[in-house]
Amino acid sequence: MTCDFNRILADLDWSKQPKRLYEPIGYALSAGGKRVRPQLCLLGAATVSGEQVVMGHVLPAALALEIFHNFTLLHDDVMDKAQVRRGRPCVHIRWDENTAILSGDQMLIEAYKMLSGVPADKLAECLRLFNEMATGICEGQQLDMDFETREDVTLDDYREMIRLKTAVLLATALRMGAYIAGADAAMQQTLYEIGIHIGIAFQIEDDLLDCYGDEKTFGKAIGGDIREGKKTFMLLTAERLKGGHIAVKGQPLEDVLALYDSLHVKEVAVAAIHEETAAAIAKLHQLPDTAARQTLIEMANKLQQRIQ
Amino acid sequence: MTCDFNRILADLDWSKQPKRLYEPIGYALSAGGKRVRPQLCLLGAATVSGEQVVMGHVLPAALALEIFHNFTLLHDDVMDKAQVRRGRPCVHIRWDENTAILSGDQMLIEAYKMLSGVPADKLAECLRLFNEMATGICEGQQLDMDFETREDVTLDDYREMIRLKTAVLLATALRMGAYIAGADAAMQQTLYEIGIHIGIAFQIEDDLLDCYGDEKTFGKAIGGDIREGKKTFMLLTAERLKGGHIAVKGQPLEDVLALYDSLHVKEVAVAAIHEETAAAIAKLHQLPDTAARQTLIEMANKLQQRIQ
Repeated sequence: MTCDFNRILADLDWSKQPKRLYEPIGYALSAGGKRVRPQLCLLGAATVSGEQVVMGHVLPAALALEIFHNFTLLHDDVMDKAQVRRGRPCVHIRWDENTAILSGDQMLIEAYKMLSGVPADKLAECLRLFNEMATGICEGQQLDMDFETREDVTLDDYREMIRLKTAVLLATALRMGAYIAGADAAMQQTLYEIGIHIGIAFQIEDDLLDCYGDEKTFGKAIGGDIREGKKTFMLLTAERLKGGHIAVKGQPLEDVLALYDSLHVKEVAVAAIHEETAAAIAKLHQLPDTAARQTLIEMANKLQQRIQ
Repeated sequence: MTCDFNRILADLDWSKQPKRLYEPIGYALSAGGKRVRPQLCLLGAATVSGEQVVMGHVLPAALALEIFHNFTLLHDDVMDKAQVRRGRPCVHIRWDENTAILSGDQMLIEAYKMLSGVPADKLAECLRLFNEMATGICEGQQLDMDFETREDVTLDDYREMIRLKTAVLLATALRMGAYIAGADAAMQQTLYEIGIHIGIAFQIEDDLLDCYGDEKTFGKAIGGDIREGKKTFMLLTAERLKGGHIAVKGQPLEDVLALYDSLHVKEVAVAAIHEETAAAIAKLHQLPDTAARQTLIEMANKLQQRIQ
C-alpha cells in the first residue's frame, strides 16, 4: 500500500491568478520530501482495510495534512528567518515576507478545501481532528519560540513542545486515515499513540542531525538550531548532564559540538530515539497483522537506522 | 433582531496557554468595531425566519466570519506595516511580527473551529462557502499588493480587487445566514449580490475617508493609502479624469488632496457609493417584507449618510 504523493501533489494546478498568491504554493509543494504524513494517513487506513482502502475516501485527508504541513514550514521559515528549505531558497527569500505570509494563509485554506473532500458522513469528525491537530502545531511552535528566551526549560517541557509541534500531526495522520476506514475508538487511539512515539523519535533525530547530519541529505545548514539558541534535545540533555544553563547562542559551532561530545549527548539522543521507536513498535504489535502494520514497523526501524 | 457581538466575543476565553499565542487573539477581538459581518449573517437568517431565527444555529457562522475578518486585519497590518488599528497599536507593534503571524494563523484555525458548530446537516455547505470566501479575500489582498507596483490599474481592476478583498465577506455573511435558516438558492443569490453592492460601497467609502475622514472616528491616520501608494478609488478616478498616471507616493498629502479637489474626485466617489447603495436597496426590495429587510435598508442608507 504505497502512493506517489509527489506526483499527485505535482498534478495539482497552482497556475491560477493572482500568480504571486498561487505560484509560491506550487513551489513549496514541489520541493519533494518523504511525504511521511500522507503515507501515514494511508497506512492508518490500510491497517483497518488492508488492500481494500478506498483511495478516494482517504486521499483528501492525506493531501490536506501534507498541504497543512507545508504551510507550517512556510510560516515557520519566516518566523525562524531560515534561508534554505530542502536545498532551495525559502519562499520568503525567493519572493518576500509578505508573499510568504499571504501564500501561507492561502495554503492553510487550501488544506481545509482539500479536507472537505472526505466522505460527507466523516467530514465533521475529520474537521474536528484536523482543527485539534492544527491548534496543537501552533501551540507547539509558540512554545518553541518562548523557549528561546527562557533559561529554565526542562526535558519534560521540551517533550511537550515537540509532542505538539511535530508528533500530533503524524499521530493525527495515522488516526484520521484509520477513522475514515472505519476504525473503532480504541484502534484510533492506539494508532494516535504510535504516531506520537514516532513523532517524538523523529524530532529528536532532527535535533541530532542538526548537530551531526550531512548538509546534503539534511537539506539545510548544520548548526542552525545552535545559532538560533533553540532549546533542542541536544542542548537540554547537555544542560542536564552538566547540571546548569549553557549559553550556546553566538558560540563557535565546533566548541558547542566538542562540549556535546565530551558529555556523550549523541549517545543519549540515540538511546531516546531507540526508546520511542521501541514503544511505537510494541504498540504496532497490538494491531491486526497486515501489510500496512509491517510497513509501519519498517518505517519505525528505518528511522533508527538513519542515525546509526 | 440584533445581538451584542462585542459582549459575546469578549466572553470567549483567550486566557489559555501558551499566553503569547492566545493573548493577541483576545486583544484583536476586543478592539470593538461595528461587527457588521456577524450582524449581516444574523440579518441574512432573519430575512428567512423573521423573529424565529435559531441563534444557536447561526451564531457559530456569524462568529466564525468575525474571527476570520479579524485574522485578515491582523496579517494585513503586518503586510501593510500599519501601526494603529482602531486607535490601538497593531498586534505586530504591541508584540512583534512573529507573534502576529502565528496568532493570526491560530485565529484562522479558531474561525474554522467556530464554524464547525453549525448544524451538522449544514456543515459541508457552510465550509464550502467559507473556503470560497476565504480564498477570495486572499486573492483580493494579493491583487491589492500587486497593484502597488503597477501603473496600468484600471477602475475595473480595482472593482474586482475590492469585490474579492471586501465585498465577498459581507456577501457570504448574508448568504450563509440565509442558507442556515433554510433559504432557497435564488434567495441566497439575491442576498449575496446585496452583500457585494454594500461591500463595494463600503470600500469606496473607506478609500474616501482615508482622504477626507476624521482621524478620531476613522481610527487610523489620514492619508495612509496615499503614503503607501495604494491604488484606491480616489487615485484611479483622478488618473481617469486627468487622463494619465499620477505618482502620489512620496508627494505631500496636501498636494495630492488639492489635486483630487481640483478634479472633483470626492463627488465622483460619493456618486459611486450612492449608485452601489441604490443597487443594494433595489435588490432588498425583492426580498419578503421583514424587519430584517428594513434593518438592512437602514444599514445601507446609513452607509451613505456617513460621507455626506
